Amino acid sequence: MDDSPGSAPVHAGVPEHGRVPKYFGVRARLEVLLDELGEDGRLPTERELAESFAVSRETVRQALRDLLIQGRLRRRGRGTVVAGPKLEQPLSLVSYTEGVRRQGRTPGRSLIGLDRLQAGRTLGEQLRIPATAEVWHLERVLLADGERVGLESLYVPTARFPDLGRDFTPDSSFYGYARDRVGERFSTAEERIETVLVTPREAQLIGVPPALPMLLLHRASFDRAGAPIERVRSLFRGDRFSFTTSLSHRDGPW
Amino acid sequence: MDDSPGSAPVHAGVPEHGRVPKYFGVRARLEVLLDELGEDGRLPTERELAESFAVSRETVRQALRDLLIQGRLRRRGRGTVVAGPKLEQPLSLVSYTEGVRRQGRTPGRSLIGLDRLQAGRTLGEQLRIPATAEVWHLERVLLADGERVGLESLYVPTARFPDLGRDFTPDSSFYGYARDRVGERFSTAEERIETVLVTPREAQLIGVPPALPMLLLHRASFDRAGAPIERVRSLFRGDRFSFTTSLSHRDGPW
Repeated sequence: MDDSPGSAPVHAGVPEHGRVPKYFGVRARLEVLLDELGEDGRLPTERELAESFAVSRETVRQALRDLLIQGRLRRRGRGTVVAGPKLEQPLSLVSYTEGVRRQGRTPGRSLIGLDRLQAGRTLGEQLRIPATAEVWHLERVLLADGERVGLESLYVPTARFPDLGRDFTPDSSFYGYARDRVGERFSTAEERIETVLVTPREAQLIGVPPALPMLLLHRASFDRAGAPIERVRSLFRGDRFSFTTSLSHRDGPW
Repeated sequence: MDDSPGSAPVHAGVPEHGRVPKYFGVRARLEVLLDELGEDGRLPTERELAESFAVSRETVRQALRDLLIQGRLRRRGRGTVVAGPKLEQPLSLVSYTEGVRRQGRTPGRSLIGLDRLQAGRTLGEQLRIPATAEVWHLERVLLADGERVGLESLYVPTARFPDLGRDFTPDSSFYGYARDRVGERFSTAEERIETVLVTPREAQLIGVPPALPMLLLHRASFDRAGAPIERVRSLFRGDRFSFTTSLSHRDGPW
């Protein structure tokens, strides 16, 4: 799905009341410049921009920061270039691997840890196992074309996946493993998406600044008998990802 | 769907490498306090918190700001209280009205503007009408229990809805109008969700600080012949909303 009218809202940047911060005018002019430069186009320096817009470097910096957070710009080496469109991840039980591949990018995963631990009360209730039962916690950084773009944290009962610690390849698809090695059938899932601020630990692992808004996807998957298989918490860079879904009238009251 | 293990990730707040900002420790202690206080519980003042944690008021303020942005806290009068859970908006062609009602809240809309304007090139292509053709632009603030929580911007060809300016009730459901008054059948929709920073104008209309991350939902709807009916851009407060979806194996490769 391409950009909606959001890209050119009618009154955008024209508050009816009140004062517009100066950097916002600069941001609007920069957006025009980005369109002219096109993807991978290199931006002039802060100093050059400040001169050409006749504003302070701090004002330019504030506008650039917004555009970086929104994913319109990217740092490259010591410069700044116009970013390509965000990756679109389908909400359709397609795995991360498959979603990224469909957009012509190379997916990857890098292992942070695979640990056995006690479920505890909350996770135990979610997975319908005793609080004292064990779960695997698999944590991996998500990569696209080698760049760190997210962090996936998966919890499954060890009773369902007793050999995970031994025969699972850490950079492979967990769903592929569950299907092919364990014969586990995922039947349904509930997903919830929200926007959160990254924690310092997550920021370090993904390599993003702490103030960056992230998209957090919670997933609970169930087998054909309705029993919970896993709980997953996947964090995606808000400046790199969007989520898409296709709906038809069977989904709603139309 | 309740909180996933994300609410108690195993290593949360324990970076393996590097320095943890001091306010993050305060934030973690505040989170424990919020759980103890429960929804609507009133927080001690900044000064009291600074004393009890033995940190500066600026450090407390930074931690509180994070928790406000994340929707864990809300301002009430001159104080700060523990927020309830985020509203869950289903991704299922259920209208905003219906989604909010299901959670026992009262939905509402307040009209910002209903204007006729030229589609222009991008919107014209999206709606498959000439760039010079006219569209309605309907812009409304979304309310939940009287509180402003979002901003909806809808574009439809005037040719499809010639009388919208005359017989549409501005605070009612557009889908209800389209179905009951115009006999328009929505068949499918494509949705895309991303996180964005609010613009100053939007911040004023919704009444949020400019740095607040928002969830932006783009929607394109089509009739049974596959012709585009509308383009919608809905902005939701990131501290108040999450989006949910239910998937089954027919949606994916399982």
